[in-house]
Amino acid sequence: MDILITGGGGMIGRKLVERLARDGTLNGRKIDRVTLQDVVEPVGPADAPFAVETRVTDLSAPGEADTLLENTPDVIFHLAAVVSGEAETDFDKGYRVNLTGVLNLLEAARRAGNVPRIVFASSIAVYGAPFPEPIPDDFFHQPLTSYGTQKACAELLLADYTRKSLVDGIGIRLPTVCIRPGKPNKAASSFFSGILREPLAGVDAVCPVDETVRHWVASPRAATQFLIHAAGLDGDKVGPRRNLSMPGHCVSIREMLDALRRVAGDKVADRVTFVPDDFIRGIVAGWPQNFATDRALSLGFEADPDFDSIIRYHIEDELGGKVAD
Amino acid sequence: MDILITGGGGMIGRKLVERLARDGTLNGRKIDRVTLQDVVEPVGPADAPFAVETRVTDLSAPGEADTLLENTPDVIFHLAAVVSGEAETDFDKGYRVNLTGVLNLLEAARRAGNVPRIVFASSIAVYGAPFPEPIPDDFFHQPLTSYGTQKACAELLLADYTRKSLVDGIGIRLPTVCIRPGKPNKAASSFFSGILREPLAGVDAVCPVDETVRHWVASPRAATQFLIHAAGLDGDKVGPRRNLSMPGHCVSIREMLDALRRVAGDKVADRVTFVPDDFIRGIVAGWPQNFATDRALSLGFEADPDFDSIIRYHIEDELGGKVAD
Repeated sequence: MDILITGGGGMIGRKLVERLARDGTLNGRKIDRVTLQDVVEPVGPADAPFAVETRVTDLSAPGEADTLLENTPDVIFHLAAVVSGEAETDFDKGYRVNLTGVLNLLEAARRAGNVPRIVFASSIAVYGAPFPEPIPDDFFHQPLTSYGTQKACAELLLADYTRKSLVDGIGIRLPTVCIRPGKPNKAASSFFSGILREPLAGVDAVCPVDETVRHWVASPRAATQFLIHAAGLDGDKVGPRRNLSMPGHCVSIREMLDALRRVAGDKVADRVTFVPDDFIRGIVAGWPQNFATDRALSLGFEADPDFDSIIRYHIEDELGGKVAD
Repeated sequence: MDILITGGGGMIGRKLVERLARDGTLNGRKIDRVTLQDVVEPVGPADAPFAVETRVTDLSAPGEADTLLENTPDVIFHLAAVVSGEAETDFDKGYRVNLTGVLNLLEAARRAGNVPRIVFASSIAVYGAPFPEPIPDDFFHQPLTSYGTQKACAELLLADYTRKSLVDGIGIRLPTVCIRPGKPNKAASSFFSGILREPLAGVDAVCPVDETVRHWVASPRAATQFLIHAAGLDGDKVGPRRNLSMPGHCVSIREMLDALRRVAGDKVADRVTFVPDDFIRGIVAGWPQNFATDRALSLGFEADPDFDSIIRYHIEDELGGKVAD
């Protein structure tokens, strides 16, 4: 079993390859090699029971995808993308990476000829307000960002190349990953992780939106498991509708902070203060909040047990089991 | 007012430029020039009250779109496309013309810098079975053909380029045009026009599907009027959801033939015989049949009055008012 992970240097890519290194297998088959691609040198797990290759390359450049697929990987996790904010400010870069990059990968996979399973990380940004509550599987894609447009186009292309038996694609729309490890960033969604991650690390945090604001979230563990599960899905059971919204939890800021108090105590929870930021409030108001993911659930995808578990996973996986005093 | 019609040599393109020649104006402004583009030499109306230029060029070739837009047209009707059947059998040509061609046009319009109104002829092929009855405006796009995939991607791109104020696009999903003038062709939908057009011209016709089969249709007059109306729509009233299913009539074969008998008499209607063709029945079974086009109706698009009118329009426009004995 030969595996390619594009965007292998990103947070989800690293979580995925660490999980693969622990498992040693995918879809019940021994993993021989994992290739990690990214635009900056990705770092593989030190103790992997398989060969790890790294490739620094830009999939949107002509010919690069063909070179990358010369090993004819059995499974490709396509995670490489320009993120939402950057795709909005750099229109050309967003289209080049998120649309041309996908087309290049699909064409290279077609030429490779082995009909690889491609697991594509799509996004709930394919949806644009106003939304029904919750958003059903057959609600239409009317993105209000260039990022969402590029992901929606990529979903359509993945389904058509799959229908023509050129690749064997599954697209999964990930919820916002929470609690995202690492440092805060400038994404408008950064605070959804920050108001939990920083207090757990002993740092004060500011929440820029009202406590009634809700969001659609899944843990890094769940996101990783979605990718693994998608790699093993029976395509015939999925049928021609190859792109699926992943199960998550629709939680309000109040519910998040109540869970933080239950799991980590008052001292941690009291590190969060509310300082409204109208700019961020405006952006977040246009985001989808709640989904009915019937198809994904019927295909065996599972949400985190509850939001308390999402906090516990972070403490176990990122903090060595210990919350900062 | 400078106008460009891509695919100007096609049936709809010809109907459109004839209508513009009769009107002499568009959106209340005098038309100075119409440029007709196609891959084979298009023929403009002889008596047009404006300059007619013709261009034989392939929009999917690098640089061609920029050359075509050097006049910075105020309105672009983008009708050029590889049709459904050919896009399915020639995968690369379909993507080149129907996706790369659209991207080239959008980029050329962006570089031209005058934010032209682009009226894009999309298709109900963006929808794939199973469908709700009728299909509402917010039903999702899950095409089951490469043609439908290319049109769905083009709709998304048109909306995003419009959102970014690079162009001012309106996409309209045309019903099957019926009665289509001219000769029968090999499209699976050809018989929907053939079972009316041939008897009206004194020729026997065969219907390959059951009389209960329904389809979504509009006359060539209505299709032309949709394009004209789209050219004049107030973008602010349309909002960010820039692609619209056009109103039509959901009629069964039985209803079509009853209308033919009412309008043209028994002798004409008796020229149709039923010879089931399982291949065509299978294809047609996967097509959408009925739409709830609330948004288009609220924006002033109007369906033909009834199916009898659709037949009468054909007799007036194509047969000089006279049905063959």
